Amino acid sequence: MFLKDYWYVAATPEEIGQKPLGRTLLGEPLVMYRTIGGVPVAFEDRCCHRHAPLSRGQVVGENLQCGYHGLTYNPKGECIGVPGQKTTPPNAGVKCYPLVERWGWVWIWMGDLTKSDDRDIPNLYWHNHPEWTRQVAGYLNIGGHYQLLIDNLLDLTHLTFLHGNTIGNEHVANTPLAKVTRNSRKEFKNTALELVARDLPSANAIRWMYNIDPPPLYARSGGFTKPDDRVDRWQMIRFEPPSHVWLDVGLARAGTGACEGDRSQGATHTVINAITPETENSTHYFWTFPRNHQLNDAELNEYLQKGVANTFLEDKEMIEGQQKVIDSNQSAPKIEINADAAAIIARNIIHELLTSEQNFDASQKAAE
Amino acid sequence: MFLKDYWYVAATPEEIGQKPLGRTLLGEPLVMYRTIGGVPVAFEDRCCHRHAPLSRGQVVGENLQCGYHGLTYNPKGECIGVPGQKTTPPNAGVKCYPLVERWGWVWIWMGDLTKSDDRDIPNLYWHNHPEWTRQVAGYLNIGGHYQLLIDNLLDLTHLTFLHGNTIGNEHVANTPLAKVTRNSRKEFKNTALELVARDLPSANAIRWMYNIDPPPLYARSGGFTKPDDRVDRWQMIRFEPPSHVWLDVGLARAGTGACEGDRSQGATHTVINAITPETENSTHYFWTFPRNHQLNDAELNEYLQKGVANTFLEDKEMIEGQQKVIDSNQSAPKIEINADAAAIIARNIIHELLTSEQNFDASQKAAE
Amino acid sequence: MFLKDYWYVAATPEEIGQKPLGRTLLGEPLVMYRTIGGVPVAFEDRCCHRHAPLSRGQVVGENLQCGYHGLTYNPKGECIGVPGQKTTPPNAGVKCYPLVERWGWVWIWMGDLTKSDDRDIPNLYWHNHPEWTRQVAGYLNIGGHYQLLIDNLLDLTHLTFLHGNTIGNEHVANTPLAKVTRNSRKEFKNTALELVARDLPSANAIRWMYNIDPPPLYARSGGFTKPDDRVDRWQMIRFEPPSHVWLDVGLARAGTGACEGDRSQGATHTVINAITPETENSTHYFWTFPRNHQLNDAELNEYLQKGVANTFLEDKEMIEGQQKVIDSNQSAPKIEINADAAAIIARNIIHELLTSEQNFDASQKAAE
Repeated sequence: MFLKDYWYVAATPEEIGQKPLGRTLLGEPLVMYRTIGGVPVAFEDRCCHRHAPLSRGQVVGENLQCGYHGLTYNPKGECIGVPGQKTTPPNAGVKCYPLVERWGWVWIWMGDLTKSDDRDIPNLYWHNHPEWTRQVAGYLNIGGHYQLLIDNLLDLTHLTFLHGNTIGNEHVANTPLAKVTRNSRKEFKNTALELVARDLPSANAIRWMYNIDPPPLYARSGGFTKPDDRVDRWQMIRFEPPSHVWLDVGLARAGTGACEGDRSQGATHTVINAITPETENSTHYFWTFPRNHQLNDAELNEYLQKGVANTFLEDKEMIEGQQKVIDSNQSAPKIEINADAAAIIARNIIHELLTSEQNFDASQKAAE
Repeated sequence: MFLKDYWYVAATPEEIGQKPLGRTLLGEPLVMYRTIGGVPVAFEDRCCHRHAPLSRGQVVGENLQCGYHGLTYNPKGECIGVPGQKTTPPNAGVKCYPLVERWGWVWIWMGDLTKSDDRDIPNLYWHNHPEWTRQVAGYLNIGGHYQLLIDNLLDLTHLTFLHGNTIGNEHVANTPLAKVTRNSRKEFKNTALELVARDLPSANAIRWMYNIDPPPLYARSGGFTKPDDRVDRWQMIRFEPPSHVWLDVGLARAGTGACEGDRSQGATHTVINAITPETENSTHYFWTFPRNHQLNDAELNEYLQKGVANTFLEDKEMIEGQQKVIDSNQSAPKIEINADAAAIIARNIIHELLTSEQNFDASQKAAE
Repeated sequence: MFLKDYWYVAATPEEIGQKPLGRTLLGEPLVMYRTIGGVPVAFEDRCCHRHAPLSRGQVVGENLQCGYHGLTYNPKGECIGVPGQKTTPPNAGVKCYPLVERWGWVWIWMGDLTKSDDRDIPNLYWHNHPEWTRQVAGYLNIGGHYQLLIDNLLDLTHLTFLHGNTIGNEHVANTPLAKVTRNSRKEFKNTALELVARDLPSANAIRWMYNIDPPPLYARSGGFTKPDDRVDRWQMIRFEPPSHVWLDVGLARAGTGACEGDRSQGATHTVINAITPETENSTHYFWTFPRNHQLNDAELNEYLQKGVANTFLEDKEMIEGQQKVIDSNQSAPKIEINADAAAIIARNIIHELLTSEQNFDASQKAAE
């Protein structure tokens, strides 16, 4: 059901410590902990003995000890100790998943281990760059299928109707997308590609709104708070499989050349969205909101933290309502509108890659 | 599963306003709103675009706008606007259901539109008549199949065991029904038939209890509060499909001729029950308790409101317990007793009409 | 799914009184009440009329009257009265289950009535014996399959990891079982056998820990509270079908001969566990903690009550976590370790007896 051979965000670094963390990802219950040496480790959350949840266990040095009968696992998931006996049963152990700590998040690989290459982790340079701050950030658990959240981010016309208190006004929905494209990483110039090991398709969309009044949150962030302030506003959206969406969004004083590349009279924000399926109808949503201006403005941080978090709560409520409607009748017809263009490309990409993974798995099995 | 070609109560008029109301009826999630002109409107609660719940949208003049991406529907359910584009996709729209506001309730038709005729709405003249007051009224959501509530109202022996604090004493269960009949509207003289467009079968039952002590609530309402007050008490029950039950219940000083028609020494109450299936195991229960005496007695209103509402809460709890027992074993045998006579007729009527509707649907499909 | 031809604990005597008690046992909803004469009675919790829960009814003398329409059942479950009619329908009644009040608990037989013999109720003499007190006792509802609790009690190595605050320290898990055997009642000398009517297999295990420091709860109970106090500690465990587990556990000053039978320098406790399946994934857990020392020490009672109850709450949480993991993947493989030896015997006994019951049922049906 889920794309497997990809890196997903599993947790924030702070979440993984000496107290084991139980969390379901891609439908599989996992436990994560950090060794005494600081290395994050992920196992299936199921002791191989009596299926006690290892997330109720305790970290002992490098290892994780089951909290029920004390079986001890090393960071590879191998059972290295059974209380009261000198040897461990052959093949005693739990499935172990690679974790990589990068860009301020912990990434997990749950697919074919022979394909795992950490250079495939997207380049989120904004998270570490001295000219950016990523202090505004958060997490939400959303009771809906992960693709509903991708759809949400690829069709920003919803800002007008759902987020009027913060980032939306009528201009978003009234302005058609200027460009929607399907690209490969290779052809799409982006610093996010520096570390790329393999090529991947992406969906991309751009919207420009000229000479408009700014919505409340961006007016405050960009300093356009006078009644007659007018701005040029942009939304540049990029989706990459399995479920990563980056938004380059901002605004500049109207007519000062932002569209031609001069953002000096404006404010740029990035919205980094790491979307990890929990189950078929629930989703982990990790987000950050880096900006490259007023980096140390604590008051602005607080304002944006509250505003963006509230905005995403509105998305959560809508998506959860949508999931219930879908559950009530899976076969009800849908219509498509122009604003869906990028979301449709993303859905097609996911569908193609899922089919490809499944065909590969089937041929592997046939060969065995 | 449900009778479709009938009018059901969908809401009270106050519930339908400028804030859309989401409610499931007959297993279908609906949204209801009132246009700026005051007309109530009902749609399926599912935007045709991405299946967002329209009940999270907003009323704009005559129309309803989806709260996610702004698709706008006119009161016929036709999509008349998609933000950012000039035309709407062909066939874009949602299913629309006729609503009629009458007798202080809002009625919905969810069946075959060619059969819809608002003259079929039952005549609840008590609700508008100057000699009656319907101030005592309420609503309950009951976690049980709607037929369990019909059964409840057609076998009032339960008053003795469940409602001893208000409307029951030993005389109800100990007094057999005087008469139980299956009638047609035509042959059954009743002012409720004035507006009738089509004939319908009904189940009817009558119980007379002579020279008894009155139960607490009716003693208070009728003014029979002295220890040696004795009354003649009546219960006249009528069921009409799909799920409407009217009770003419009251009491008069014993031996003053109530049985022969002289109620001048007594107090008459009507219990109007509008029962609308929500799902297979939950039910909307709208009720009123009109009376034709002491119309402006605020203290009596308050007393009766509290007493009747508590009484129906006892029914709710019993029916919900019953539904759980039924769910635990659908095939456990049942026995029938004399007091079931009217309920059995009602069940037979529903079964016959359901079969008839389903056969009609099947033949329509075959003809297409 | 469950062994039927056995006595299970259904309730404590205090729970069964004039207010009917609804409780599900072995997947069947039951109602229990006590007649005016003091005799406990158990029925299926389903009126034969309209399937109302009889647990919402009321006790009338010897009988139970349905709280909905007043059908009255005598203590045999026969319907002896229907309000408003002189006769009762043929075969009107509910299934009735034998109850026996013994050893301070109420036992139920839900299997083949021809096999019911109350001499099969285990002898829990500790509950009534003047040299023992059973004041420390409790009940828990556990959201897990009953065999998970049996496993728990037959492998006490978990004390080390789960109950370090009360009854566990490292010596339990590090000390292998001295002896694990499968026995029959006949060959296993035990006062619990006095009343035995039929032979039954059992699983038995013994662990001795010599010259160890005592865990907190037993240190307090046995009076070994000085830092250098050392004890010899024993655990003698017995399982009998369907789900009864008795523990003889205690400790004596190290080297004073407890292992040879001289417990005069020690403290003995019994843990009596009556485990009754509620559903496939929930369990009624009745327990007592009799001891034969300081019988009237109220402070010790309170200390032990709190300590043991907290200990069993830790078990409940672990078993409920385990059940969730099992539910997430029923087919995940398991490994076995040495400490499982007694639990495996118990599982084998249950499996054999279940198969035997089912074969008997099948042959009975074939013969009919």
